[in-house]
Amino acid sequence: MQDQALADVTHKDMANAIRALAMDAVQRANSGHPGMPMGMADVATVLFTQFLKFDAAHPDWPDRDRFVLSAGHGSMLLYALLYLTGYPEMDIGQIERFRQLGSATAGHPEYGHAPGIETTTGPLGQGVGNAVGMALAERLLNARYGDDIVSHFTYCLAGDGCLMEGISQEAISLAGHLKLGRLIVLFDDNQISIDGSTDLAVSDDQLQRFSASGWHTAAVDGHDPQAVALAIENARNVTDRPSLIACRTVIGYGAPNKEGTSSTHGSPLGEEEVAGAREKLGWSYPPFVVPDEILAAWREAGAQNRAAFERWSAAAAKLDGTARDHLVDPVDEKVSAAISEAVAGIKADFAAEGAKLATRQSSQKVLERLVPVVPGLIGGSADLTGSVGTLTKQHSTVKAGEFTGNYIHYGVREHAMGAAMNGMALHGGIVPYAGTFLVFSDYCRPSIRLSALMEQRVIYVMTHDSIGLGEDGPTHQPVEQLAALRAVPGLNVMRPADSIECAECWDIALKSKTTPTIMTLTRQGLPLLRTAPTGDNLCAKGAYALIEPEGGRDVTLLSTGSEVSLAVDAAKVLGGEGIKAAVVSMPCWELFDAQDAAYRDTVLGSGPRVAVEAAVEFGWRKWLGPNGVFIGMRGFGASGPAGELYKHFGITPEAVAAAARGLVV
Amino acid sequence: MQDQALADVTHKDMANAIRALAMDAVQRANSGHPGMPMGMADVATVLFTQFLKFDAAHPDWPDRDRFVLSAGHGSMLLYALLYLTGYPEMDIGQIERFRQLGSATAGHPEYGHAPGIETTTGPLGQGVGNAVGMALAERLLNARYGDDIVSHFTYCLAGDGCLMEGISQEAISLAGHLKLGRLIVLFDDNQISIDGSTDLAVSDDQLQRFSASGWHTAAVDGHDPQAVALAIENARNVTDRPSLIACRTVIGYGAPNKEGTSSTHGSPLGEEEVAGAREKLGWSYPPFVVPDEILAAWREAGAQNRAAFERWSAAAAKLDGTARDHLVDPVDEKVSAAISEAVAGIKADFAAEGAKLATRQSSQKVLERLVPVVPGLIGGSADLTGSVGTLTKQHSTVKAGEFTGNYIHYGVREHAMGAAMNGMALHGGIVPYAGTFLVFSDYCRPSIRLSALMEQRVIYVMTHDSIGLGEDGPTHQPVEQLAALRAVPGLNVMRPADSIECAECWDIALKSKTTPTIMTLTRQGLPLLRTAPTGDNLCAKGAYALIEPEGGRDVTLLSTGSEVSLAVDAAKVLGGEGIKAAVVSMPCWELFDAQDAAYRDTVLGSGPRVAVEAAVEFGWRKWLGPNGVFIGMRGFGASGPAGELYKHFGITPEAVAAAARGLVV
Repeated sequence: MQDQALADVTHKDMANAIRALAMDAVQRANSGHPGMPMGMADVATVLFTQFLKFDAAHPDWPDRDRFVLSAGHGSMLLYALLYLTGYPEMDIGQIERFRQLGSATAGHPEYGHAPGIETTTGPLGQGVGNAVGMALAERLLNARYGDDIVSHFTYCLAGDGCLMEGISQEAISLAGHLKLGRLIVLFDDNQISIDGSTDLAVSDDQLQRFSASGWHTAAVDGHDPQAVALAIENARNVTDRPSLIACRTVIGYGAPNKEGTSSTHGSPLGEEEVAGAREKLGWSYPPFVVPDEILAAWREAGAQNRAAFERWSAAAAKLDGTARDHLVDPVDEKVSAAISEAVAGIKADFAAEGAKLATRQSSQKVLERLVPVVPGLIGGSADLTGSVGTLTKQHSTVKAGEFTGNYIHYGVREHAMGAAMNGMALHGGIVPYAGTFLVFSDYCRPSIRLSALMEQRVIYVMTHDSIGLGEDGPTHQPVEQLAALRAVPGLNVMRPADSIECAECWDIALKSKTTPTIMTLTRQGLPLLRTAPTGDNLCAKGAYALIEPEGGRDVTLLSTGSEVSLAVDAAKVLGGEGIKAAVVSMPCWELFDAQDAAYRDTVLGSGPRVAVEAAVEFGWRKWLGPNGVFIGMRGFGASGPAGELYKHFGITPEAVAAAARGLVV
Repeated sequence: MQDQALADVTHKDMANAIRALAMDAVQRANSGHPGMPMGMADVATVLFTQFLKFDAAHPDWPDRDRFVLSAGHGSMLLYALLYLTGYPEMDIGQIERFRQLGSATAGHPEYGHAPGIETTTGPLGQGVGNAVGMALAERLLNARYGDDIVSHFTYCLAGDGCLMEGISQEAISLAGHLKLGRLIVLFDDNQISIDGSTDLAVSDDQLQRFSASGWHTAAVDGHDPQAVALAIENARNVTDRPSLIACRTVIGYGAPNKEGTSSTHGSPLGEEEVAGAREKLGWSYPPFVVPDEILAAWREAGAQNRAAFERWSAAAAKLDGTARDHLVDPVDEKVSAAISEAVAGIKADFAAEGAKLATRQSSQKVLERLVPVVPGLIGGSADLTGSVGTLTKQHSTVKAGEFTGNYIHYGVREHAMGAAMNGMALHGGIVPYAGTFLVFSDYCRPSIRLSALMEQRVIYVMTHDSIGLGEDGPTHQPVEQLAALRAVPGLNVMRPADSIECAECWDIALKSKTTPTIMTLTRQGLPLLRTAPTGDNLCAKGAYALIEPEGGRDVTLLSTGSEVSLAVDAAKVLGGEGIKAAVVSMPCWELFDAQDAAYRDTVLGSGPRVAVEAAVEFGWRKWLGPNGVFIGMRGFGASGPAGELYKHFGITPEAVAAAARGLVV
């Protein structure tokens, strides 16, 4: 390669390489979205060649700038950039196998499929929330590690769809409030959505909207590289506010007949149009071929921060090993041991005190012990701090300019809270948890799903987990949320029955590196049931016999959370009648399901079964069998004192005992 | 009552009556939210005495102004207003039994509990979306009926929490785009949320934010009745844009020590503080007592629009009976018969054509017939019109100023779409349906829940209902959504197996006056299975034997939607081996569950069972029993061509046949 040849490579050549790869890959797959990558190729080229701090050879560099493709349908933009800049695993074969089973180049970017894919996107607006979380993580870690170790930007590419989704407003508003000056959103302002012109559905002045949330804003011609570079430069210099750059682009730029129309959005251009685009763009190379000198120019960009990476490595080498490890994963072996010790201590205390506590209170007490031993633990709540017990004496509040804190007031923004927690977990260095009411898990369900799909350790503290919350009534009483969450693959749904189970569930959640957890907790007080605590974490197998009658079982009572104490009371009543009832607590169905059949059979017993849970039956037949009886909710709840509601809906020890009697006789 | 005494009643007296009732009721219940009603009492008094077009004696007046309390936790504001103005069923006893089991005065306003409660609120931001739907319904019906019959305002009271929720942005943006000039949002700008000062979490300039979406905005002192009245008057005169009035208020206004603090938000003030508030407000009456002259002044306000109501009644009397009926319920007996006829016709056509169609396409063909016979049917989509088949040749687009149309481009705003559809259904006169992808049901789940809780006929068209969508990959492939939706009480989840079932499901959905429906439809083509169509709607019982082998069953294959054809193929394979397999199609579990046990047992059969559905197993054990075999998804999907995915995940006729063989042998 001649240096001269390399020097002759223009911005246009480099951007066209992205466009060609995008249209060719979509055409080959006969499926996909060429419009966005072709439209944003200029902006992306400017960003990756002039600004983005990354080293393709070291994709895990903790202090790299993060690039989030929130408009995930434009995945070929990202794959093209990763291939061109020389990321590992992203060879041309992957580009050729776009959208094929088993390839790294899935229809939408999938975290974990290849280095350089910072997050899974596609469900619109999520990436904006992830980016806010990453930018927040950067500031939190910067406050702990200093500029030499953590000091990077987060860039997010968002489309019209991302900005129409409500989650974007929550994220924008939160970022503006926290003045996340190192967050830069590049808005692909192409004025086209799937249904056609954005005029069909939206008339917002996006600059004014972002400005209303305290953002720096700018608008540029997204096909003018100098203007884009200047806007990014300016945005980087505005460090007291996040920045929006609205990039006016032409969707499908280069397609002779289709550019600027919705027909380029989500379908292949067609062979003829692709040929026409080659001509119009001046790109005379065959499909999937990028000329050596253009590829070399891109590879040079992929390595241009090598010196910065090496400076960083030298600085990081001076950190002690623990601090260095925690930058990536805050729960190493030492912290894990400290968690075990803290949990053992609080279990002993709970047992000694024997107090009746709501599990939201138990959880707070557990956190009181855990926060000091897990430095990367960052708490928060969606404006229900006092109600959900997420704040401890160990916390201080994170505010704009004060990132030494470890507690975030997310505001009434459950959805952005979930997406930001995903972003923090993905960033590394942080174990995020935050709380709201269980019924409002519905408000952040798309983010919960992504926690599970991306296998991120994100802990959702969700209290007021049944009609036991009382007077707030059916809008606030979850009845179907437990089932709906248990249906999500790769998600641990925990429902501890007392303080000790609560401590054990926290232990599991913090050590589940690749599984998010929902902690469902009560508003109302619960008696201590685990009066003989053991060193073992009994919740770790998901379910266990809390009461095993001597001489075998006549009936097994299955339950979770607040209803386990009803089952215990029922067992006592039955015992008085000579009916031997086991009580099985099932704090986590998913963990129980993962045990071997022998264990499951032993716990469930071979005799008749009754289940009690203040929620709908949906899903319970798996454990109950066809002849078991379920005591629970048959529809929505009602407003009234909790005790009256339990009676009204027939969820009582008497009802459980009666059901058991009916099966035994 | 002396007229003079009545004339002497001041604004302050009337507002204080609300405050006193609110603090007394919360104190009595020892639970609730006094802060908002006390803070917004002045604004509400101005609205109800000077502007709101309502007649307490005729709460169902179709052309009444709608008042939506989006900040539903302040329910006592609404209950106090309903009592004071003399609505039926809202006597002082109801106020005294606030938040008690069985009372109309639930913790949050519950639609249907008493006249005058226009919608169920509490989950924040939903009311804003409902109000947008109501204001849209008003314009749609105005375009059809004229000013004499439909011409009213929609007022929505929203708090900080409502405006922080992302759904509010979607709703605001949609309302601004459609220029809903008769929508007026009263923002309770009290600068307090549950965690404390709103400064903790939010810094938005709300006026600028609404202005960015094309709203008229104003800010007033919410305790200055003249200023509030002027602002409302101005807002009513701005008819080319919706209006926001930010009312600066003091939360808990009148509480001597607690006003202006978060401690008034969600807890009783306490006896002492209540006494202090009585003194400070100059309200010397005992709890729950409103002096006669003040009550009389309120009752006068409740009847002040009697003449307007009578003018309206006279105009409405001139309508033909059908038009008058459709103003409330667009599906009367005649329309119902027309639906049956249209469905019978399209079923016959489907049978005659025998074409392979995706159910999203079948659905579009069904709608093509239904739109002309159900004038109140208003379609739409969240920017997936072409993909979900919601638009027909019978539609024209609703635009700002053009409300004769019947199709709404909701934009990428699934959540506001759901909430707006709830608002339209609640308004009366409209049967709303709209579409997105099934996986994005998660984005509007809180609104779906409220459709069910409020028993509203809202039809969600949700396509791309499995891995059958192919290359878009796991972010777009629902695996747990069917289970999650089936878990919601009072919701019909339909999954038709072919064109004919699709038509039958539409028939059921449109006639289910008190049940919302999720139509889950495929992206991929499906063969016609119901080759011998009957006049009967076989889907109406939720499940039925599609194939009943002669001479009894060896095995029963259960399935839904796109997998029914796999079961049919498996049955053929098994038949060739001498194994008699029945195939049961289960398009709607909820309807099947509502049949008597004898029917269910007959359909399910007493022999071994195999179920096949391209989704997680969660919930299937109810029909399968412990020994049945489930063929489906065990986790998230993958990106690739649909046919390959079905093979990859082992969801094939061969797998079904093998499972059946294993059970029969």
